Amino acid sequence: MAAPELTARILRRLLASGLRRRAERLLARIHAADFGPLLSDLEPDEIETVLEILFAHQRAAEMLSELPPDLFRRVVDAVGDERLGTVLAQLPADDLAHLVTELPGERREAVIAHLPEESKAHLRQIELYPERSAGRVMTTDFVALDAKMTAQEAIDFVRARGADQDAESVLYLYVVDDEGRLRGVVPIRRLVTSAPERRCGELMIPDAIRVRADTDQEQAAAIVARYNLLALPVTDEDDHMLGVITVDDVIDVIREEATEDIYRLAGLHEEEHIYSPVLLSVRKRLPWMVINLATCFLAAGVVGLFERAIEQVVLLAVFMPVVAGMAGNAGIQALTVVARGIALGEAELSSAGRAVVNQSLVGLLVGAATGGAAALIASWWGTSPVMGAVVFAAIVVSMTVASLSGAGVPLVLKALGQDPALGSGVIVTTFTDAVGFLSFLGIATLALDHLL
Amino acid sequence: MAAPELTARILRRLLASGLRRRAERLLARIHAADFGPLLSDLEPDEIETVLEILFAHQRAAEMLSELPPDLFRRVVDAVGDERLGTVLAQLPADDLAHLVTELPGERREAVIAHLPEESKAHLRQIELYPERSAGRVMTTDFVALDAKMTAQEAIDFVRARGADQDAESVLYLYVVDDEGRLRGVVPIRRLVTSAPERRCGELMIPDAIRVRADTDQEQAAAIVARYNLLALPVTDEDDHMLGVITVDDVIDVIREEATEDIYRLAGLHEEEHIYSPVLLSVRKRLPWMVINLATCFLAAGVVGLFERAIEQVVLLAVFMPVVAGMAGNAGIQALTVVARGIALGEAELSSAGRAVVNQSLVGLLVGAATGGAAALIASWWGTSPVMGAVVFAAIVVSMTVASLSGAGVPLVLKALGQDPALGSGVIVTTFTDAVGFLSFLGIATLALDHLL
Repeated sequence: MAAPELTARILRRLLASGLRRRAERLLARIHAADFGPLLSDLEPDEIETVLEILFAHQRAAEMLSELPPDLFRRVVDAVGDERLGTVLAQLPADDLAHLVTELPGERREAVIAHLPEESKAHLRQIELYPERSAGRVMTTDFVALDAKMTAQEAIDFVRARGADQDAESVLYLYVVDDEGRLRGVVPIRRLVTSAPERRCGELMIPDAIRVRADTDQEQAAAIVARYNLLALPVTDEDDHMLGVITVDDVIDVIREEATEDIYRLAGLHEEEHIYSPVLLSVRKRLPWMVINLATCFLAAGVVGLFERAIEQVVLLAVFMPVVAGMAGNAGIQALTVVARGIALGEAELSSAGRAVVNQSLVGLLVGAATGGAAALIASWWGTSPVMGAVVFAAIVVSMTVASLSGAGVPLVLKALGQDPALGSGVIVTTFTDAVGFLSFLGIATLALDHLL
Repeated sequence: MAAPELTARILRRLLASGLRRRAERLLARIHAADFGPLLSDLEPDEIETVLEILFAHQRAAEMLSELPPDLFRRVVDAVGDERLGTVLAQLPADDLAHLVTELPGERREAVIAHLPEESKAHLRQIELYPERSAGRVMTTDFVALDAKMTAQEAIDFVRARGADQDAESVLYLYVVDDEGRLRGVVPIRRLVTSAPERRCGELMIPDAIRVRADTDQEQAAAIVARYNLLALPVTDEDDHMLGVITVDDVIDVIREEATEDIYRLAGLHEEEHIYSPVLLSVRKRLPWMVINLATCFLAAGVVGLFERAIEQVVLLAVFMPVVAGMAGNAGIQALTVVARGIALGEAELSSAGRAVVNQSLVGLLVGAATGGAAALIASWWGTSPVMGAVVFAAIVVSMTVASLSGAGVPLVLKALGQDPALGSGVIVTTFTDAVGFLSFLGIATLALDHLL
């Protein structure tokens, strides 16, 4: 595993010197997952030569399926529809479906048209499952056994299927009845470690955990993570075996969902990533920023209610960012802890009340401590202990309410069957800003005579 | 898999009626990973009875290793040091080490004192590796083969080791030389699918990917994810085989690191979770909130520079939250995309400049669009197009600078070898607040004559 920059430099020199055979040997030793960093260090014409070599060696398909999204688009731009169709057709159905959705919209149909009939059928089949469901991420490549087979017969059966097997697809073997209904699971290690003459029907785990094809991929991933599985069988409503979700796909799902959770708190779309084209990012961020603008003006409206007070004591405008900043942070902290707890499946609605009470108490106590410090500074700055008292009271109130809403909003959204991360950020921010200004300027107005 | 509430209700009734045998049979059917939700629905005295049954059936250890942290502490509180030591000693070394660190500080030594000598030695061994390193998460339970063994001999060897084998630990078999140095890896499926008389030396993958024991766990997890591995061998500096990181531990690492990334953006400590005791949360959040208070007063200081202007045009105080709110969001969005890109290994320092330029451009364009809308509202509200122009200019400038700093700060921290997520949130927020107020109130002061 040499550094990609070094490999790129050597490769570049080989290509420039016309030493194509040696370049081919070098490329043959590179793992499919390592082409990403390598290609991003090469010039367009060099990329084309590399692609040509990979196509010639039937390795283009696996390489494409491992590229990060932006590089995938750049590489795809350099390849014609027909050639792309031929290459993609070599992939397993789930990878094919995934890459087809990653294609730029205008090319999707053209590339699909060049797929062989079998791949098109696979694609139509997979598109019947809801987006982000188990059916979309499963592979249909699995080994089905008969309960009457012996351990040795099963081993011979797997052996006869031979080397075309995917690494992950023979970790578990599935015992099905005559109609293809899942009866049980035989881990391959159990075949290997048990007496050769025992029957699969005895060796199998009968109540194997399974999911339906329309199960959300996040839920399927959580099951694999929770029970430490290496693969999870996917069935239809009558328990017919349809496919298998393997642990490597689960890792991808977990990373994807973590990204989504992080993104949603900031109002970002999951299609964005670090090297997204500028206009894509602008298009994706605009709607959320328009909502954000509306909520900002709502906060401005609250401040506007107190124009008279600010006119009389300008220092109020100076301390406004302190109260709003502290409340905003308290809200985001409570929101982050609770939303993450929900995402990790640690939050039960039955004990949701405890989470809200806990977070509010934390807000109150941290608010009292930091509010006290802020009060000292504000008293000194404003040359009046009354200003300090107002700042203290406003920070305590607004941090408590902010923590309460930060914890409560995702739980309420979850209880309503909504995504707890999606709307929470906006709602909590709006709420904390409004409460922060209202409490600070409101309390200040009450004490106005002593502030003048 | 009945709902945990239902199981809890049935269990409770069985225990109340003194039907202990039936309660035992019910518990025997529950997966170790499912005790968490079940226990959290039971009363303390019921938990004690359940624990007693699990202890009697030797299942307490696996149950403990699957509990979420807060429940683990509650359960541990109900068990004496000696009994806990006996139970924990049944766990593999990596799980033992992990749970020992989860014990409340004051009990750790007492429980360790009750561990058998062998477990203590394991623990001392594992504590030689740095925290969060591959050595800490690896299991030392793996199968080592000789290169001269045939496939059938290897299968017989695994079979002879028998049923005590962990599911994950026989997926790959490791060919080592006479001194225990890693020569290659034989996937178990390759043993099963190849001719029985072939030698392991021919079957093995010679250049197997491996990591050193002091490798960061996040890096090890990224390698497993990238190359779709099911297990990753861990060696010392002389390539002696020490252990194996299995994919189920990798999933835990990936989730843990994702939580950490989400938490750090909000200034939270990874020890916190949704049901943390209030005082723990207060203690963990206070330092960050004190820093945040300081940065808030920094922003207040910026506003303070413009007291005169606000005194003359109070509407400036009203629109301040709009500019700061928009800039703050733009900064967080750029920060989130870039920090996540770094965490997923998509960001190369060589192309970091492009990311900063892209994000700044996005900030500029989104700023122009939303700033235009804000300007219309501000003009109408302030009854002067000059106020609109000031708001527009301030939003564009501050959102651009906020995006630039949001993208730049984590990349600079990474280049300096620091954690890109850790300090970024505070730095970016401070920066955006200061820039937001400075640009808005500064531009307003320049145009003050036209605003009066």
